[in-house]
Amino acid sequence: MGSLNINPELDDQIFNTINPLDPEEFRRQGHKIVNFLADYYQNIEQYPVCSQVKPGYLQKIIPNSAPNNPELLEKILQDVKRDIIPGITHWQSPNFFAYFPSSGSTAGFLGEMLSVGFNVVGFNWISSPAATELESIVINWFGKMLNLPNCFLFSGDGDGCGGGGGVLQGTTCEAMLCTIVAARDQMLRKIGRENFGKLVVYASDQTHFSLNKAAHIAGIDSENFRVIPTTKADEYALCPKSLRLAILNDIKEGKVPLFLCATIGTTSTTSVDPLRPLCEIGKEFGIWIHVDAAYAGSACICPEFQLFLDGVENANSFSLNAHKWFFSTLDCCCLWVKDSIALTKALSTNPECLRNKASELNQVIDYKDWQISLSRRFRALKLWLVLRSYGVTNLRNLITSHVNMAKHFEGLIAMDTRFEIFVPRKFAMVCFRISPSIIISQVSTKFGHEEEVNKFNAKLVESINSSGKLYLTHGVVGGTYFIRFAIGASLTHYRHVDIAWKVIQDHANALLNQSSV
Amino acid sequence: MGSLNINPELDDQIFNTINPLDPEEFRRQGHKIVNFLADYYQNIEQYPVCSQVKPGYLQKIIPNSAPNNPELLEKILQDVKRDIIPGITHWQSPNFFAYFPSSGSTAGFLGEMLSVGFNVVGFNWISSPAATELESIVINWFGKMLNLPNCFLFSGDGDGCGGGGGVLQGTTCEAMLCTIVAARDQMLRKIGRENFGKLVVYASDQTHFSLNKAAHIAGIDSENFRVIPTTKADEYALCPKSLRLAILNDIKEGKVPLFLCATIGTTSTTSVDPLRPLCEIGKEFGIWIHVDAAYAGSACICPEFQLFLDGVENANSFSLNAHKWFFSTLDCCCLWVKDSIALTKALSTNPECLRNKASELNQVIDYKDWQISLSRRFRALKLWLVLRSYGVTNLRNLITSHVNMAKHFEGLIAMDTRFEIFVPRKFAMVCFRISPSIIISQVSTKFGHEEEVNKFNAKLVESINSSGKLYLTHGVVGGTYFIRFAIGASLTHYRHVDIAWKVIQDHANALLNQSSV
Repeated sequence: MGSLNINPELDDQIFNTINPLDPEEFRRQGHKIVNFLADYYQNIEQYPVCSQVKPGYLQKIIPNSAPNNPELLEKILQDVKRDIIPGITHWQSPNFFAYFPSSGSTAGFLGEMLSVGFNVVGFNWISSPAATELESIVINWFGKMLNLPNCFLFSGDGDGCGGGGGVLQGTTCEAMLCTIVAARDQMLRKIGRENFGKLVVYASDQTHFSLNKAAHIAGIDSENFRVIPTTKADEYALCPKSLRLAILNDIKEGKVPLFLCATIGTTSTTSVDPLRPLCEIGKEFGIWIHVDAAYAGSACICPEFQLFLDGVENANSFSLNAHKWFFSTLDCCCLWVKDSIALTKALSTNPECLRNKASELNQVIDYKDWQISLSRRFRALKLWLVLRSYGVTNLRNLITSHVNMAKHFEGLIAMDTRFEIFVPRKFAMVCFRISPSIIISQVSTKFGHEEEVNKFNAKLVESINSSGKLYLTHGVVGGTYFIRFAIGASLTHYRHVDIAWKVIQDHANALLNQSSV
Repeated sequence: MGSLNINPELDDQIFNTINPLDPEEFRRQGHKIVNFLADYYQNIEQYPVCSQVKPGYLQKIIPNSAPNNPELLEKILQDVKRDIIPGITHWQSPNFFAYFPSSGSTAGFLGEMLSVGFNVVGFNWISSPAATELESIVINWFGKMLNLPNCFLFSGDGDGCGGGGGVLQGTTCEAMLCTIVAARDQMLRKIGRENFGKLVVYASDQTHFSLNKAAHIAGIDSENFRVIPTTKADEYALCPKSLRLAILNDIKEGKVPLFLCATIGTTSTTSVDPLRPLCEIGKEFGIWIHVDAAYAGSACICPEFQLFLDGVENANSFSLNAHKWFFSTLDCCCLWVKDSIALTKALSTNPECLRNKASELNQVIDYKDWQISLSRRFRALKLWLVLRSYGVTNLRNLITSHVNMAKHFEGLIAMDTRFEIFVPRKFAMVCFRISPSIIISQVSTKFGHEEEVNKFNAKLVESINSSGKLYLTHGVVGGTYFIRFAIGASLTHYRHVDIAWKVIQDHANALLNQSSV
């Protein structure tokens, strides 16, 4: 039998250069980064919101191979300041009104730090029971705040054994892909794999483009991706009648309706599809209905928005991005399903190397079977910290304050007759543009009316963004280019909205004056 | 025109309760978490390595809905200590030898903190140029360290326009799925979509089980997922002759060979598939070859392991998990491809809302088109911090020190004739078991020989893990159950290996004595 040979000298000899997780060095350097980031937030308004660098800027200033020898953190942080920060588009800036927000928060950051610090790989229950159990608990908390029907929640007993429940994934794209695959497999078990090519996925022309990609990845024929047009009269929401017609037409042609994605808060205009009639159609034809509430789902913790969820009990799955408008740093997509077995049947793996008693007794959830990847981070911590650090009341107030700021911005636009609202505001995003009448009267028209108006508004956006004072993006719906002003960055206050409006007006003035000369 | 109405009182009124990103509060709380985690690392050896809680433990002690009012960080951290830490399996413990390591480091943590702090959503170049550019730079750095052929690297000019290059994804599962979809689409463009059902994906019986899941998600018929058996004589590496036979057989049956995953460092035994002959076969038959080096890829920065990459120039894609054995916290999978256009053709989306000049001029990379999801974190920061903080020389030394500790452990086993090595060690993982001869001679046999030996070794693993002193997991290959001892946790030193060996011996002694009574 071998003698025990504990040899601290050998350790010293090997590790005299670096111990990559030395607690005191971790402490020293950790404090430095906290200060660095606190200073960053303090100074964030000094930076151009949208980065003004040119393509390839970084390659010119960074060496083309990794250093052989260690460099000091102090030096690295200098480089972050000098080389990286100018290349960052500052999503945390109070003057960021582009896309949808990526609403960071101290609590979300702290939760992520804990998760990164523990650095567990929570693929199954035993690999870190707390990671799985806290996730099931907070996703139930969230479901209750939204007033989601019980059929989407864990029941509290026999959690591992099917029924409703939720999971934290990275992004909505993943949630879409997982639910399409679950629906696909469920349907092919009924109709046979030879009918794969007949499966049809439905969307509106306002559904997020990721659905198309998810369907494509899952092998759905691109000819069977059905995009149903919406209209201005319906405020760009999916019309149930049009859906029914499309389905009936597909059935007539021998296709098999599989999946519909309904949206609460579309990307272009934050439109809301009417869940109740859509879900009833879904039920009638045996279609899996996924509700994508990536952006606006968070607002549904406020009672005044919960009417949008009316009818959701007939949907099959529901998701929202807590990293958009719920103060949880990227990434954190909450997905609830009514039939978790449909999901796990599609995504389960049971390799020998992960066998353990708890899983075999079916007493626990192994979240690897609820998502694409095996490895998974302890995301529940950040959601837990956000919910506890702020509390439901404050979270509702924060969301409401963003909505109120958007209302306020809408009011500012209404007072300036040169501008018009493109679609009625629903949440905290305002869609507007300079009115065609102003442009046509003041600007010489080289192109057709509509094209000229669009080009002028695009020029305005470009001019504003180049100033670095704020960042906003655009949408084009039904041929009309409009400006999206999305409020939700955690540092944005009324004064930023007011200043932003002044900047928009100034740039509009300059452009209009220029054009009328 | 609306008058400018800057109204700080309104701000104060709304935000008197909470500003979720107040810099001073961020600073105060950030320091608290750094100290909390530094203390955690300091005390990590006090906790049972594998969590000893029972299923459902957390539900019993956590309220079943979110609090209405804010709670103090101090209270939350008390709960983390009391409720969460006992439910954590401590992957960062120096006594963690299970699965493969999840090697955290201070530099990886700091990089992640910066990424979380900036909280940018880097889907395309303009959304944060530094996120894209730093990613292209560090993945080239890493490729050079591995001595990957130039065809896998960005050339430095015309980066957005195809050719080789790399991307940071979350996990190997994602990398597998993306490359299968790229290969699938490329093939279907040639042979027509109606032949989808003929596509065959090849693996060995030692390939990671995620490949099967990825192929399934991509719509490959499960009957066309070809698992080629390996043998002990080949040290469980995939035999090129067997691959060729399988391919020829499929072609004879009218199938279309599509994709092979070769592995450098399999999960069960860290076997290495012979790249050169496998890739030559791949080339001959037009098969996409992906090389999964999730675990052992990191070791290939050491010259002594680079021979395993011989022949990789004929592969199509190559991936490794920097979060496994490269001191970057979860998640961080590096994927290199030779033909990035094959990838982006399969995964591109070009929605109006993301249109911008840089993308349209094709001057930049939009990494959303290199992965499943739209949203993406600024993962390059952590890899950059790891590479700069430690330097290539130290990183090689750290990997080598793990390999040397594994050699040392192997030596300890060799001195105890009751144990045997199951397969020759290649990297820093040792596969061993108690010898059949000892078990058969000392233990009354109720079952067949092999089953008895397996059960006894399984009992040993269970007994060791229940002690909480260390955590290790098992494998079963060719019907033989063996113990996997994977070294790579960042805090593990020689003394931990020595103590672990003593614990293993003690538990073996107890079980053998018990059984022989």
